Amino acid sequence: MKFIKAPKKFYFHYPFPVTVVVSKFEDKVNMMSAVWHTQLSFDPPLYGVLISRKRFSHSLIEKSKQFTLNFLDYEFLETVAFVGSVSGRELDKAEVFDIPLKDGRIIDVPILSESYAAYECELYDEREYGDHTLFVGKIVGVHYSEDAYYGEKFIPDVYKIRPVLYIGDEKFLTTDPSTEKKYGKKEAEEYLRNWG
Amino acid sequence: MKFIKAPKKFYFHYPFPVTVVVSKFEDKVNMMSAVWHTQLSFDPPLYGVLISRKRFSHSLIEKSKQFTLNFLDYEFLETVAFVGSVSGRELDKAEVFDIPLKDGRIIDVPILSESYAAYECELYDEREYGDHTLFVGKIVGVHYSEDAYYGEKFIPDVYKIRPVLYIGDEKFLTTDPSTEKKYGKKEAEEYLRNWG
Repeated sequence: MKFIKAPKKFYFHYPFPVTVVVSKFEDKVNMMSAVWHTQLSFDPPLYGVLISRKRFSHSLIEKSKQFTLNFLDYEFLETVAFVGSVSGRELDKAEVFDIPLKDGRIIDVPILSESYAAYECELYDEREYGDHTLFVGKIVGVHYSEDAYYGEKFIPDVYKIRPVLYIGDEKFLTTDPSTEKKYGKKEAEEYLRNWG
Repeated sequence: MKFIKAPKKFYFHYPFPVTVVVSKFEDKVNMMSAVWHTQLSFDPPLYGVLISRKRFSHSLIEKSKQFTLNFLDYEFLETVAFVGSVSGRELDKAEVFDIPLKDGRIIDVPILSESYAAYECELYDEREYGDHTLFVGKIVGVHYSEDAYYGEKFIPDVYKIRPVLYIGDEKFLTTDPSTEKKYGKKEAEEYLRNWG
């Protein structure tokens, strides 16, 4: 193992899943891909996404206080990659890249129709962290592909959902469903019985 | 697509990479796996991780104001799964699960020696979001497997790094390196030239 004091740019913890953030203010709709995001709470359901102040989406969310988070299968990699590569200030990405949209049910921001899951979010909190803003959304509605999840907790079927993961350096990859393994409390308790 | 207003528990946006959070206060070392985490900023280098107030790690971090974030290859799935399945209040997980530790270089919290990357973090901010606390760490040092990254930005070699991804329901999987694809500005600009 090598050691380095905090480097400038780094991707040590990558790959990481990509989400497409859609924002809208008045008639202007924009979308961008983001790799810095995480759920924050179950109750209330909160989700955070980091957006640089330089991005056009940043100004739209600041004005409308709403956004959607869209998760697309690897077959739509081109969409995910393209919306992350150019700015929406000068062009309408949905039109140019031929991305089908669908109206939100609760908020006035569209989702991407090709998503296997999309969260409608109302801005709940906003906080500056260094060169990015943490936008915290309260999830007020979820669109999802019914056949891709099972159970009351909506667990993904790994053969049906193959997320877009970003590596850095404009490179992506996805999951290998055949590597799925269950490892939980039962296995840990069995280990502990044998250990004692 | 089905629609649902915010459900209680949900894994729509999974799989998500797992990090192992190591904390230490006085002589007590603990570790837990966490799936809610994200980078927050490059400058300064900030990383956030969500921890429930019920967790033993929460109290250790509150006291010591330090922690490490450890990323392990899928071959160490058992370690990652086990430290997430039991509490460290009653047992010493490193001892019981035979997890090799290494002292931090900057802070007084160990890292897991088996990590391909580990961040040493000093507590920078702490914020309550619903049922979890967002601990924001400033990365003050990085340990990494030299042969697993390339370039000045430390981009992962997908054939050498196979992260542990959590699906929900105590299930895990990893990436398929053969699906790696480059898609960036060049491809987007070429598309735009043909479109115009």
